[in-house]
Amino acid sequence: MNIILLSGGSGKRLWPLSNEIRSKQFIKLFKNENGTYESMIQRMYRSIKKVDENANIVIATSKSQLSSIFNQIGNDVSVSIEPCRRDTFPAIALSAAYLRDVCHVSEEEPIVVCPVDPYVDESYFTTLITLSEVAKNEKANIVLMGIKPSYPSEKYGYIIPKDESALSDVVAFKEKPSLCTARELIKQGALWNGGVFAFKLGYVIAKMQEITGYSDYASLYENYELQEKISFDYAVLEKEQSIKVQRYDGEWKDLGTWNTLTEAMDESIIGNAVLNETCNNVHVINEINIPVLVMGLNDVVVSASPDGILVSDKEQSSYIKPFVDGFEQKIMYAEKSWGSFRVIDAGDSSMTIKVTLNPGHSMNYHSHKKRDEVWVVISGSGRVVLDSVERPVNVGDVIEMKAGCKHTVIAETKLQIIEVQTGKEINADDKEICNR
Amino acid sequence: MNIILLSGGSGKRLWPLSNEIRSKQFIKLFKNENGTYESMIQRMYRSIKKVDENANIVIATSKSQLSSIFNQIGNDVSVSIEPCRRDTFPAIALSAAYLRDVCHVSEEEPIVVCPVDPYVDESYFTTLITLSEVAKNEKANIVLMGIKPSYPSEKYGYIIPKDESALSDVVAFKEKPSLCTARELIKQGALWNGGVFAFKLGYVIAKMQEITGYSDYASLYENYELQEKISFDYAVLEKEQSIKVQRYDGEWKDLGTWNTLTEAMDESIIGNAVLNETCNNVHVINEINIPVLVMGLNDVVVSASPDGILVSDKEQSSYIKPFVDGFEQKIMYAEKSWGSFRVIDAGDSSMTIKVTLNPGHSMNYHSHKKRDEVWVVISGSGRVVLDSVERPVNVGDVIEMKAGCKHTVIAETKLQIIEVQTGKEINADDKEICNR
Repeated sequence: MNIILLSGGSGKRLWPLSNEIRSKQFIKLFKNENGTYESMIQRMYRSIKKVDENANIVIATSKSQLSSIFNQIGNDVSVSIEPCRRDTFPAIALSAAYLRDVCHVSEEEPIVVCPVDPYVDESYFTTLITLSEVAKNEKANIVLMGIKPSYPSEKYGYIIPKDESALSDVVAFKEKPSLCTARELIKQGALWNGGVFAFKLGYVIAKMQEITGYSDYASLYENYELQEKISFDYAVLEKEQSIKVQRYDGEWKDLGTWNTLTEAMDESIIGNAVLNETCNNVHVINEINIPVLVMGLNDVVVSASPDGILVSDKEQSSYIKPFVDGFEQKIMYAEKSWGSFRVIDAGDSSMTIKVTLNPGHSMNYHSHKKRDEVWVVISGSGRVVLDSVERPVNVGDVIEMKAGCKHTVIAETKLQIIEVQTGKEINADDKEICNR
Repeated sequence: MNIILLSGGSGKRLWPLSNEIRSKQFIKLFKNENGTYESMIQRMYRSIKKVDENANIVIATSKSQLSSIFNQIGNDVSVSIEPCRRDTFPAIALSAAYLRDVCHVSEEEPIVVCPVDPYVDESYFTTLITLSEVAKNEKANIVLMGIKPSYPSEKYGYIIPKDESALSDVVAFKEKPSLCTARELIKQGALWNGGVFAFKLGYVIAKMQEITGYSDYASLYENYELQEKISFDYAVLEKEQSIKVQRYDGEWKDLGTWNTLTEAMDESIIGNAVLNETCNNVHVINEINIPVLVMGLNDVVVSASPDGILVSDKEQSSYIKPFVDGFEQKIMYAEKSWGSFRVIDAGDSSMTIKVTLNPGHSMNYHSHKKRDEVWVVISGSGRVVLDSVERPVNVGDVIEMKAGCKHTVIAETKLQIIEVQTGKEINADDKEICNR
């Protein structure tokens, strides 16, 4: 099976756990079989590999998510990077071209497209295989997944199938109906459109050529910025006559707010927290190293990260966005391809950061113009390079780097460093990548 | 006026803002005239000095509170340190002896004793002066303050006065009555006993000699541990016939729980926090550098410090103690006589601390056996002493101290340092004070 996983969005609705560089799909909320927590993207990736270990997965994403993807999925994952945001049609076209031109997938092969973030059960993944097979057998140009609605929602698009069979022709679509219409549609057997569909690779390559004028990956990538912002639904789906819908009757949840997200949690607490016996329907997700105690509350979510602390009635939590827009959002924690960093103190002309490098990894060789840095190794071992001179480092070692000094560190074991930056103008842009 | 301020207690009821070394009287919750926040002890001390700028104040306290007292009141405050806890009679006797033998107050002078932590209005302090004058004029051996009850409480002691005049004889006492009795007592004109009273210094010195067998400060201090744990009420008050009560009709609140404490706050937010418009009767006290957002809650207190985060229904907050007993309480923040420190990262064999020294102050000259330390100066300037060698330090300077190295730092301006400790066994006891 070939899959394009759409990993988009930057979420403020799940503040303080999601931010500009950490979308909701990277928050580790789901306990897997070995007792550790995994994120939506890890869960989705693992589940696909479970039903098809040879699945050829390409993640369509933006540059800002790359570090998190490499950190969570591994450095050898296939990624089609959108140079900028251009809605779903250009993103799918670029990934399709990537599959053909970089991964050498034949135009005769079926491709499944699905978003990375719904909360689903195992039958979802076997349905993806069915979609792929239906597309392969040319029963239609596009095969959509039709999700059995669990309630009359005004938020989703509806697919009206011709009949109730597992695979049916499509009679019509209805985008975001009124509550009343939604009820009526469900009575008539309408299904939710969750943005999951399959086609033959050649089909979308042809559409790409037709709409963008480009016929290969490199050209489309080069000229990506010039593309119109246009959705796949609008550009392709609405104009296509040969569409079928494949039913999916299993669980499907859009975990876009704290209210829906906490419903999907296996336990009421993640992290260091205690609820007293008078709490009802309270969920705590605590990512910071300070205990949380909740007493006497009902229907509340408490969520703490280095970016902030949310304490909210669950219903109210869906109105979070304007408040978060009002916060001055410094990035206090980020996952990188090589590990992670956390700001532990920020002063007027200093910043102290805890840096964690995974074994075998290193950061870019770089320098700063306007700040000095000091590293103190607090665990692990590795090697530092300072102005081309390499030397080993161990716990307790102190490395001083004045402004202009080129530096990097390579972790041999898991390496943790306290980095103290001092200077009048400390900002993330003051970084020059150097050649070694 | 001579005053003994009783500063006792270590509070878990106001966790996470109070802990083993920070009692509730040191939490800065009250906005004063110049817009900064002050603690109960600062408010009490300032208000006494306002009604009597020559007031001779001695704070009776334990060693564990010394740093906080010096930090908040200043290093030239008079302090009578109890070598260990022995209830109110030995504490008052020791302070009285301190006043005579160290401060050279005459035995003919009146002394007022009052606890440091009630929340009161300005007339409380003029009433203290009245108490002092009544004691001076020998109208009774002991003059108590009788507080006009605001509700029938089962928690307090009641004083039944002979009549309703401002200064009255005392007919009887009643300790912690039932709710029903409390109502009846209030109808009869009974007053609360807030533990505020005055006497002539010589009166208590005589009691000290009679009960402890010692007649001077040095002897009682030396033998303090041998003293019985006995309250002033039990040892003196209950046996005394010559007692009068002076009425106080103003505000008096015992701020012992989050519920009562938040009632006394001038504003609903202290620190970085936002409440949405659907919050009612919500108070936030945020001492950490992370924004708090509260949405859709009623009658809730949110309190965050480096020790923990409390989110509680206000009523429920009075049941906090057993939960806090369950937390492994590392001290993450402390005020010292020279400034303060905050743990910003704690690892298996490392600890990173932000140290703030006030101008002109220095820490003890000391060394550690089992840990290395590194200082990076992040603001201010001063001088360090390493194994007797003194040198100036400024922002960006790095100082390495291997285990055994004797060290201190003297702040010239306000000085902030990131201290990184590394070692297999890091604990607060590994500290040897050295002579310079």
